[in-house]
Amino acid sequence: MTTVAYLGPTGTYSEIAALQYLQLCNSNLEPNPSQMYPYSTIAKAINAAEHGNVDVAVVPVENSIQGGVTMTLDSLWQSESLQIQQAIVLPIAHALITRSQTLEDIKVVYSHPQSLAQCQQWLELNLPNAQQIATDSNTDRLHSVAEDVTVAAIASQRAAEIYNLPVLKFPINDQPDNCTRFLVLGRTAPTTKGTHSSLAFSLKRNMPGALVKPLLVFADRQINLSRIESRPTKRSLGEYIFFIDIDAPIDNPNLSEALHELQSVTENLKILGSYGIYIVV
Amino acid sequence: MTTVAYLGPTGTYSEIAALQYLQLCNSNLEPNPSQMYPYSTIAKAINAAEHGNVDVAVVPVENSIQGGVTMTLDSLWQSESLQIQQAIVLPIAHALITRSQTLEDIKVVYSHPQSLAQCQQWLELNLPNAQQIATDSNTDRLHSVAEDVTVAAIASQRAAEIYNLPVLKFPINDQPDNCTRFLVLGRTAPTTKGTHSSLAFSLKRNMPGALVKPLLVFADRQINLSRIESRPTKRSLGEYIFFIDIDAPIDNPNLSEALHELQSVTENLKILGSYGIYIVV
Repeated sequence: MTTVAYLGPTGTYSEIAALQYLQLCNSNLEPNPSQMYPYSTIAKAINAAEHGNVDVAVVPVENSIQGGVTMTLDSLWQSESLQIQQAIVLPIAHALITRSQTLEDIKVVYSHPQSLAQCQQWLELNLPNAQQIATDSNTDRLHSVAEDVTVAAIASQRAAEIYNLPVLKFPINDQPDNCTRFLVLGRTAPTTKGTHSSLAFSLKRNMPGALVKPLLVFADRQINLSRIESRPTKRSLGEYIFFIDIDAPIDNPNLSEALHELQSVTENLKILGSYGIYIVV
Repeated sequence: MTTVAYLGPTGTYSEIAALQYLQLCNSNLEPNPSQMYPYSTIAKAINAAEHGNVDVAVVPVENSIQGGVTMTLDSLWQSESLQIQQAIVLPIAHALITRSQTLEDIKVVYSHPQSLAQCQQWLELNLPNAQQIATDSNTDRLHSVAEDVTVAAIASQRAAEIYNLPVLKFPINDQPDNCTRFLVLGRTAPTTKGTHSSLAFSLKRNMPGALVKPLLVFADRQINLSRIESRPTKRSLGEYIFFIDIDAPIDNPNLSEALHELQSVTENLKILGSYGIYIVV
């Protein structure tokens, strides 16, 4: 029975993604609560998978509005053993959860910084005087919502149901097409190679066209890169690690050839996984 | 007399960068306090410059550990009128500010999420049981430090001096080579073109090698890119805006030619500025 670490507590979008993953594995059987392990940070959830305390960690890697989740990218680069098993794309729709009957009475809004950012225009227009307080997860302060009628939280409708709290407004995200891509990370290669591959590399030195060489390796073979993201090496300002997503499984002959050539134009090259993408509708 | 918006309140690293900029402009004359306008968010500081309430905004754009500051990049892309006047690289060294005499008595640590992240290993090792609470700026809760001996904050040594509070440990950042690059943004072109240029572009469509074409334009002319960062267009997952920094002023003949060619391989191309870099030691 697969065990899953996720950014908890119960009611977070990460939990929804984790449940979707278990249903995908179990041919839509209802997941068992004993399979689900909430962690207080993304780093702790990834560590649990790395050290074998759970089979996999389900963590956010990219949101369509906020961009890359740097903690996940940095942990993937540092990991010795984790491979991407599966990607899950989840639509994100935020609810304003409060016991207040009107917006006027709300003095404080709690949520994760990414959720606050995703509702920034709505908040400025509808709750210009409410204090916005960042929390570790969307559901951290739902107990305050239960206790105090002047408090609101931004979280999923599912969180409101779990904590038995009313939703005053839904959806309140500024962009209707808001979705988050999650990665399922485990210590084994996935059973099928899927349709997509991810890799990361650092460059030998900063020189004209240093990044162009690795990219040409793909372009010359008509291999589509669906994403490129840079992260600092943390050694010095101006040195980067590049994360690349490719629309092909890792055993695609073109890609195998490209990876071979890539070795010679990069400093350190890591294959992060070959996997399928499951889009939740 | 130049007026400057920055991420306040007094004592933040943004204020130190803003003061450095004024000293640079005024040939090292002591800046006048009436030139300095603190704002509670990066977005508000940038808006103040965009709408002419101040001459320039000084905002962080990249940290050597945490990477790009997404709010600044997104605001630059959306801005109609702002140009980069100057870049300032500031070394970042964090102090643990508390009235407690020992680490054992500290129950809560307040700081900006980036500063907490930059001291994560130190905190896990030295204050494993203290609660970490994210704030809008490093100095937001220094009044709590003054009132409660079990509270600590992470901020600059300068902040400790301004608020007249003791420093228990310094430096506590995990990486010794921690520095942040700030941009000075204003509505006019800078008086000198400086040494560096920044631009941003979106791509016409996702196709094999779509990103390679713009990069080849630079590589073919031996123009060095010192940085590339992607941000979501916010339209749909998988569509990006690319931010590029170049080690050449905008009127460099090679670069002028490259920019002309770039028009034909990008969807929307913005020149963000041509400016000098001032490295604070």
